[in-house]
Amino acid sequence: MNVAVLGLGLIGGSVLQALAAGGHRVVGFDADPATRATARTAAARARTGTRWEVAGTVRDALAGTDLCVLAVPFPALPSVRRELDGYLGLVTDVTSIKGPVRELMGGLRFVGGHPMAGKETSGFRAADRGLFVGCAWVLGLEPETETADWLELAALVTGLGARVVPATAAEHDRAVAGVSHVPHLLAAALTGAIENDPLAAALAAGSFRDGTRVAATRPELIAAMCGGNAAAVGEALDEVIHTLRALRTQLSEPDPVAALRPLLAPANATRSAWPPVPGDQAELPARKDVLLRLGRVGGWVIGVDRPHRKVTAMRPETDRNPS
Amino acid sequence: MNVAVLGLGLIGGSVLQALAAGGHRVVGFDADPATRATARTAAARARTGTRWEVAGTVRDALAGTDLCVLAVPFPALPSVRRELDGYLGLVTDVTSIKGPVRELMGGLRFVGGHPMAGKETSGFRAADRGLFVGCAWVLGLEPETETADWLELAALVTGLGARVVPATAAEHDRAVAGVSHVPHLLAAALTGAIENDPLAAALAAGSFRDGTRVAATRPELIAAMCGGNAAAVGEALDEVIHTLRALRTQLSEPDPVAALRPLLAPANATRSAWPPVPGDQAELPARKDVLLRLGRVGGWVIGVDRPHRKVTAMRPETDRNPS
Repeated sequence: MNVAVLGLGLIGGSVLQALAAGGHRVVGFDADPATRATARTAAARARTGTRWEVAGTVRDALAGTDLCVLAVPFPALPSVRRELDGYLGLVTDVTSIKGPVRELMGGLRFVGGHPMAGKETSGFRAADRGLFVGCAWVLGLEPETETADWLELAALVTGLGARVVPATAAEHDRAVAGVSHVPHLLAAALTGAIENDPLAAALAAGSFRDGTRVAATRPELIAAMCGGNAAAVGEALDEVIHTLRALRTQLSEPDPVAALRPLLAPANATRSAWPPVPGDQAELPARKDVLLRLGRVGGWVIGVDRPHRKVTAMRPETDRNPS
Repeated sequence: MNVAVLGLGLIGGSVLQALAAGGHRVVGFDADPATRATARTAAARARTGTRWEVAGTVRDALAGTDLCVLAVPFPALPSVRRELDGYLGLVTDVTSIKGPVRELMGGLRFVGGHPMAGKETSGFRAADRGLFVGCAWVLGLEPETETADWLELAALVTGLGARVVPATAAEHDRAVAGVSHVPHLLAAALTGAIENDPLAAALAAGSFRDGTRVAATRPELIAAMCGGNAAAVGEALDEVIHTLRALRTQLSEPDPVAALRPLLAPANATRSAWPPVPGDQAELPARKDVLLRLGRVGGWVIGVDRPHRKVTAMRPETDRNPS
């Protein structure tokens, strides 16, 4: 395919390099001239056949492409959206909020996307063509989505080694609020334990390191993703605060050790059973209802047969009665 | 030294192997016969000169030793304490709560210890003689502590490659409540995001993985350490809940993205400055006040000169005016 990638940060840069390595003709653009220069230098150093181009304007990047991947941060999407007026190719994005982006993209051939990949580092220099191998990549399915468009993107994304998870924007936003957005807020809150406390900072070890890792993410990115998904994040955060208050109550019991144990056992069982084990592989018809059900039970797509409108799916081990 | 290690789980097994590899004569004991058998088999396979023995009783393990390392879980300490009546050697422990252990060990030559090392796995099979290289290892300094005993242990522990951090039991318990105990409770609370939600479990990625890692720790161990340090953990948890409620309030603002940013920026700065960078190396007199101050400003001991009662210390970069 001929693909434009707008925004060359960690995710955009990785998409650019992964698609180029996969044999696609890719043109990148970034609003920052220094980032464009970095991307051009990296292209010149890449092996023949895995190179990309870097355009000087959005218009030049889009010219002649079938697909545009929007990899700019959520707050930058509205201004980029205006430059897409009249674009006839397929459009997707990689932001971590899908409901508001869906509204913004009305009038385009749009399928929302979200690769569940990231690092606490950012920028083109952190980009990695292998970033998406084995990662979950949500592709949005809505009443207005053309199934053919969805399958085209799903074929591209499975080609990068990702697991394509079908979900509606609402389902996605609720799920990632708990597993991705709230963890950033907990990490931020946990850093308070070492603030102005050098002894605590010297004693902090593995549980602090891992529990706070994503607090090193740029604060404007955390604010954009949590604030952009505020309703769902608020509900998920309420649940966590509720659990923590229950644990706090147990700490004040006469025998806190005995009181805490029954609250901690289910968490241990849940975490020990994660990540979910893939079960059977299955050929499924590429119907919206079938695909959405697959996502809801925890399955994903690993291959696409576009001529026959079928997908190869991994169903979770726990799903014994699939459609 | 001749050392007894009572309790051969992850930490005890690692201490046993690290001391044996360091040329000490070490005898281990565990109340579980299967663990003793595992430790004996591993000893037989170890290289000559790095082997340890495994005794069949506590009495046999203690016979002829200068030091006893208590590596049993906190709830098992009272019964082991009774078997130490009349023991004339030095006693230390490795549990993550120091105040209650200090009380329990009255009448012995005791210096409390806590290596800030661990994994979510446990048991002798997970033991690793290199576990303590570079890790912080608190050694308690109280009014009743003999400085000579403290220096003897500090020499042994720095010999394992650990950073010895001097602190009182109260200082230790307050610091680890925030950086070690509360993270386990946050991890447990965060697992709720995927409970009965296969889609969320399939989308959970790096931030969930790291934020919940320690929830896989055995729940009775988490309950014992948090419940055993209930007062300090309660205070630290209150602070985290307070921060989370402030973040929750910002999520309900008309512009949550703008509202969240100023709360997240300090957390980013704090996490980005961690772990602390060691500053100057210094020779310090081994006086309790000097050592405790070193711990409070975030420094640690890397070497001990027992004849001259001096220590080699790393002072933090931020400490420009040391004693």
